[in-house]
Amino acid sequence: MTSVHRTRVAIIGAGPAGLVLSHMLTRQGIDCTVLERRSRGYVESRLRAGVLEQNTVELIRELGLNAHMDRDGLEHHGIYLQHDGQRFHIPMTELCGRSVTVYGQTELTRDLIAARLESGGALHFEAEVEGVHDPDSDHPAISYRFDGEEHRLECDFIIGCDGFHGPCRNAIPEHRQRLFDNHYPYGWLGILARVPPSTDELIYAAHRDGFAMHSMRSPEISRLYLQVTHDDHPDNWSDDRIWEALEARLGTPGWTLQRGPILDRSITPMRSFVAETMQYGRLFLAGDSAHIVPPTGAKGLNLAIADIRVLGDALIAHYLDDDEHPLKDYNARVLWRVWRANAFSNFMTGLLHNAPEENPYEHQLRMSRIDYLHRSTAAATALAENYTGMPFDASQRFMTPP
Amino acid sequence: MTSVHRTRVAIIGAGPAGLVLSHMLTRQGIDCTVLERRSRGYVESRLRAGVLEQNTVELIRELGLNAHMDRDGLEHHGIYLQHDGQRFHIPMTELCGRSVTVYGQTELTRDLIAARLESGGALHFEAEVEGVHDPDSDHPAISYRFDGEEHRLECDFIIGCDGFHGPCRNAIPEHRQRLFDNHYPYGWLGILARVPPSTDELIYAAHRDGFAMHSMRSPEISRLYLQVTHDDHPDNWSDDRIWEALEARLGTPGWTLQRGPILDRSITPMRSFVAETMQYGRLFLAGDSAHIVPPTGAKGLNLAIADIRVLGDALIAHYLDDDEHPLKDYNARVLWRVWRANAFSNFMTGLLHNAPEENPYEHQLRMSRIDYLHRSTAAATALAENYTGMPFDASQRFMTPP
Repeated sequence: MTSVHRTRVAIIGAGPAGLVLSHMLTRQGIDCTVLERRSRGYVESRLRAGVLEQNTVELIRELGLNAHMDRDGLEHHGIYLQHDGQRFHIPMTELCGRSVTVYGQTELTRDLIAARLESGGALHFEAEVEGVHDPDSDHPAISYRFDGEEHRLECDFIIGCDGFHGPCRNAIPEHRQRLFDNHYPYGWLGILARVPPSTDELIYAAHRDGFAMHSMRSPEISRLYLQVTHDDHPDNWSDDRIWEALEARLGTPGWTLQRGPILDRSITPMRSFVAETMQYGRLFLAGDSAHIVPPTGAKGLNLAIADIRVLGDALIAHYLDDDEHPLKDYNARVLWRVWRANAFSNFMTGLLHNAPEENPYEHQLRMSRIDYLHRSTAAATALAENYTGMPFDASQRFMTPP
Repeated sequence: MTSVHRTRVAIIGAGPAGLVLSHMLTRQGIDCTVLERRSRGYVESRLRAGVLEQNTVELIRELGLNAHMDRDGLEHHGIYLQHDGQRFHIPMTELCGRSVTVYGQTELTRDLIAARLESGGALHFEAEVEGVHDPDSDHPAISYRFDGEEHRLECDFIIGCDGFHGPCRNAIPEHRQRLFDNHYPYGWLGILARVPPSTDELIYAAHRDGFAMHSMRSPEISRLYLQVTHDDHPDNWSDDRIWEALEARLGTPGWTLQRGPILDRSITPMRSFVAETMQYGRLFLAGDSAHIVPPTGAKGLNLAIADIRVLGDALIAHYLDDDEHPLKDYNARVLWRVWRANAFSNFMTGLLHNAPEENPYEHQLRMSRIDYLHRSTAAATALAENYTGMPFDASQRFMTPP
């Protein structure tokens, strides 16, 4: 027997995208239900990105969900870039008036879940979606399995925040979809270490042995990354080998990298993916279900939230103002940013990594491109405006204030 | 029998680089001789680049050789970029305070030759260099054949402005040299047509069939280019086929390309090349003898003149102020610009051409990168400052005035 439920907006996936959307809608009195196939414990502990662009921070503040973020988040006004052991600073706030906040996606997810459950909003963990029905009709529905029973959720709209492997993207017929894919011949070995960061802001380093990065999660926890080959395995990396590689790649004269116990190590492959159709009838995709970027530009989470900002406002316009245009324009309004974030992530990735097929000429060009970011205010400003997040109303030509 | 001559500075090559250097030195009373293997007629008629960056224009003015350039040159304050039939303007002067001047290298070369001969300065055409001797000693010399006789030119310095195929670069021992090379799988079919330009400023167009460009030489003569495969031949291109391809690739709604008689057609391959050692003892390289860029950024001639500006000043410091440092620092002082111009030329080339190996993802990124130049003042400014020429004193961080 199948239990039948009804909601206005069915949201698949309780990552930051789905959760933020649920808060946007509930705040306007629009009923919605979030279904998540994983357990709460799993969702709240998976290690993810940690840099929030200003647009993301502003939306969290608008939703009043900023108490922990404001307490524990570290606002950064720049980053360091480095090549051949020379480090320089990109003063982002000085260049483009915006900043980023270092605050783990894991922490943000916990905040969003706690607030959702506290307010009594529908959010079901371990609810496995088994079918996305009639998305192109005016009566779409979701069938899912929860607590050993079959359920059916009837709704006005289905929102796929269900990640790259989720069922929603595949509910769009192939002939209506354009998919774009790109792989990189390397990955990141990421570690979490119990040691105060050896830097006040993030360091992105190009080195002849490969890329390295020094990030952080808190004043006590450092996050560090090393470029490895795409088929490498964490078991190949002893603690000593990791620290020695980090010291070599991040090293500059007079600077010391502090070591500490390694709490976690894993390898992330690098890929780019874009589904150009993010809407089909009453089904809308947002975040990783529609696009994946390599992590170098810290854009994955932020791009998902940018989708949600546009989609949430469009749903609100539909329900509160009876205005269908924003929903109809969703694809067009978000795609320019999807491609921009892809182009920026690809640029940062290409700039900082040693590709195995790179010829010596291309290597020198890459060094010149890093050097140029040091010489040119304009080039550094272009990096800063992408890194902190392109303004929301950049659908026409915009001017970064000088 | 060999005639022996003596000069302070022996300049090989009567292209713009060698000729400008001869004027810089002669103006300061420093004796120099220019040897050119081709005839005057050949040198004065070969079709070359036509966009002078502001640095080049300023140096020609300082040397007082600007009468014809000021009369016939067309100062441009911007360029047009276009993709998918959408054209937009990059207002370079507004963005970075600098401009470019459309004036053919052929015309500039004629001006420089006429002034050199008029002033009685030594300039020998059809003088074939046969040996570059003892460049690492304090008594270097050139042996050459002229008017059926053998000659020897003893000098303090040898300056190789002798192009990619000239003998000077090869006089540097292999173990002292680092060479970098890159090929592109396409070339340009360039035509010269007797028809007023259909545009007030240059148009750079990315199109699914390939790159096209509308340039000009004068109010009566247009210069147009089409991307072709690197193994294509001008005979494959009838007049009609050329104009139809130009119309398709350059077309935008409401705009018409005027046709006219085609005066010249040729295919230029695209390559990048850098010799990282541009000095060896008393031998110095400048321009194409040390580096080749693809033509997309209009940097070849301008980069040669930039080398000469640094080298000329260094030679003047040696002779007039007894200061050796500028000559010793020549390599370090010019190389950052050589790599920057290479990086910019490579960027413009990659941005605007369809590479055969481009995957659909990369194609979309490329369209996003062109679109970004329309949306972002910072990105457009970075393009403008490279296109008009990076300031001469950008050896430390510089700020383009807002």
